[in-house]
Amino acid sequence: MNITHAYAAQDAKSKLAPFDYKPRELRAHDVQIEVLFCGVCHSDLHQARDEWHNTLYPVVPGHEIVGRVTATGGHTQKYRVGDLVGVGCMVDSCRTCPSCQEGLEQYCESGMVPTYNGQDRETQEVTYGGYSTSIVVHEDFVLRVPENLDPAGVAPLLCAGITTYSPLRHWNVGPGKKVGIVGLGGLGHMGVKLAHAMGAHVVLFTTSPSKIEDGKRLGADEVVISKDPQQMAQHVNSFDFILNTVAAQHDLNPFINLLKRDGNMTLVGAPENDHPAPHVFDLIFKRRSVSGSLIGGIAETQEMLDFCGKHNITSDIELIAINQINEAYERMLKSDVKYRFVIDIDTLRQGSAA
Amino acid sequence: MNITHAYAAQDAKSKLAPFDYKPRELRAHDVQIEVLFCGVCHSDLHQARDEWHNTLYPVVPGHEIVGRVTATGGHTQKYRVGDLVGVGCMVDSCRTCPSCQEGLEQYCESGMVPTYNGQDRETQEVTYGGYSTSIVVHEDFVLRVPENLDPAGVAPLLCAGITTYSPLRHWNVGPGKKVGIVGLGGLGHMGVKLAHAMGAHVVLFTTSPSKIEDGKRLGADEVVISKDPQQMAQHVNSFDFILNTVAAQHDLNPFINLLKRDGNMTLVGAPENDHPAPHVFDLIFKRRSVSGSLIGGIAETQEMLDFCGKHNITSDIELIAINQINEAYERMLKSDVKYRFVIDIDTLRQGSAA
Repeated sequence: MNITHAYAAQDAKSKLAPFDYKPRELRAHDVQIEVLFCGVCHSDLHQARDEWHNTLYPVVPGHEIVGRVTATGGHTQKYRVGDLVGVGCMVDSCRTCPSCQEGLEQYCESGMVPTYNGQDRETQEVTYGGYSTSIVVHEDFVLRVPENLDPAGVAPLLCAGITTYSPLRHWNVGPGKKVGIVGLGGLGHMGVKLAHAMGAHVVLFTTSPSKIEDGKRLGADEVVISKDPQQMAQHVNSFDFILNTVAAQHDLNPFINLLKRDGNMTLVGAPENDHPAPHVFDLIFKRRSVSGSLIGGIAETQEMLDFCGKHNITSDIELIAINQINEAYERMLKSDVKYRFVIDIDTLRQGSAA
Repeated sequence: MNITHAYAAQDAKSKLAPFDYKPRELRAHDVQIEVLFCGVCHSDLHQARDEWHNTLYPVVPGHEIVGRVTATGGHTQKYRVGDLVGVGCMVDSCRTCPSCQEGLEQYCESGMVPTYNGQDRETQEVTYGGYSTSIVVHEDFVLRVPENLDPAGVAPLLCAGITTYSPLRHWNVGPGKKVGIVGLGGLGHMGVKLAHAMGAHVVLFTTSPSKIEDGKRLGADEVVISKDPQQMAQHVNSFDFILNTVAAQHDLNPFINLLKRDGNMTLVGAPENDHPAPHVFDLIFKRRSVSGSLIGGIAETQEMLDFCGKHNITSDIELIAINQINEAYERMLKSDVKYRFVIDIDTLRQGSAA
């Protein structure tokens, strides 16, 4: 099998740089994928820099992968050479625990195997992600990508898309529901698009007046400047559901107070330091709840991709060459991206060939 | 109409003392109730002392009322003289908002009328509670009390009972579910009894080893000392639902970590200062939720009373005379009660007659 060309960080302080490795031999149910595009998720940066204190070096980030099947194992049933496919945040799980049995592999009781910085369940080898010319994945963790969508814009659906789609579905967002999306970044802009396509009345909350126009273009029916108490007061007790995508530490209470009775706010951004405590009275007097949500299961990820194919939804992206990745990380730290960087992996193949 | 004899606080600093008032004339759907027993809830103390900064003086506390119907209005349909009845935390609501229409009057969008320290919707007169020889209430907010139960032990069901019953039902507690009850006070001991009767596997969390035996007597299958990390570690990721009855400020995270995927912890105790913030990662990685719950609706309160009648459940009480109420408040502040004080209102009638 050929050598895979990739970009890796060698330690917490070093920039990402070229790195070659030999992929595993195809197992019976494996699919080999030529990576075409890979989205750049904020967690790539966290893990490249060991900010979660669990990075196994060298680390090849990337879990928003779109590519073409180039080879299959002897017993592969779901995919054939030439299929357009995706890989998200997971490449394996125990498959036997209650969560796996229910199709919620992301909550696998034994721990799912992350696409990168994980360990293969058979060999304990460290998994390498999508900043690579190719990747080998068990077919059960491969998704089918609708051919009608721009594949570069599909890549971020594999993490940012499913991370917002899953809680929107779980909390029954649809026609007749008033839904808030907090924050207009990689996750938030997908939340706006998806909630709009689901038929809900969508209100975007942002701290930046400069994002009002873009929010409406993306599908928000209303945009509220969350720093403005008067604007916020107009929406008290009115939301069925709020999806909070902001990872930076902030006060949840102004949003909790906008929820109706039995309303829920789900957090999908994890702050380094916890948000200030919710006011218990505000939970009690309306039976409101606050919860979290992690990506989505494989079946639901396929459902999301099919939904996006049907509604012609992709991520708004800035396409970059692989050698712009370190600069892209710096810009992400300044939230200077609309709304997701996606690496054109052909630039990695060409660079390596040169 | 006769004068009603009661006990009231005249201001935030004064003790409760005898107070007479003239009850309202019976309206068409009113029921006049001779109060037999009235439970003593911690919120009585808070409001007598204006600790929620909204007390209208003089205040006659008491919203855990059991008594006999002594008169009815011209169009009363549900109750007749002699019926054994109860009154809980509410005596009216708007009846037209979505919450009222759904039988969730406690969440009335216009605000339900509390049994005491509220204001009558027609006359704006301040409502007086159950530390009284009688009370006049619209029949729609009167409950039927099962005759097979000790009426003194029934009184606390009208607040402590429904406050725990409603979230246990809302979160589908029953056979096959592992349910935690945090705290063994007035609310907690009802939570243990009710969850046990619903068929769940009940685990009581307490900080006091002295409460182990009592917890098991009340229906807990297991008792865990929540200060002991080793005991807590044995229950990680195992609870379907945790009902947290502790009003004192405490760290929620050790309990959140005991919830399964999709598990919920509902708070029914409101601390003066908010609990430390929940760890967002712990919510996200198991899709756990934290919520609040407020008493229960009228229909559900009747369901709870019927359930208690069927399962022979009452509160464990200490019966006191009305002139012991100030002492009882001091003992409540030290959690020195097993598990609810109930005033024998005959002692108020006799004292006033003397």
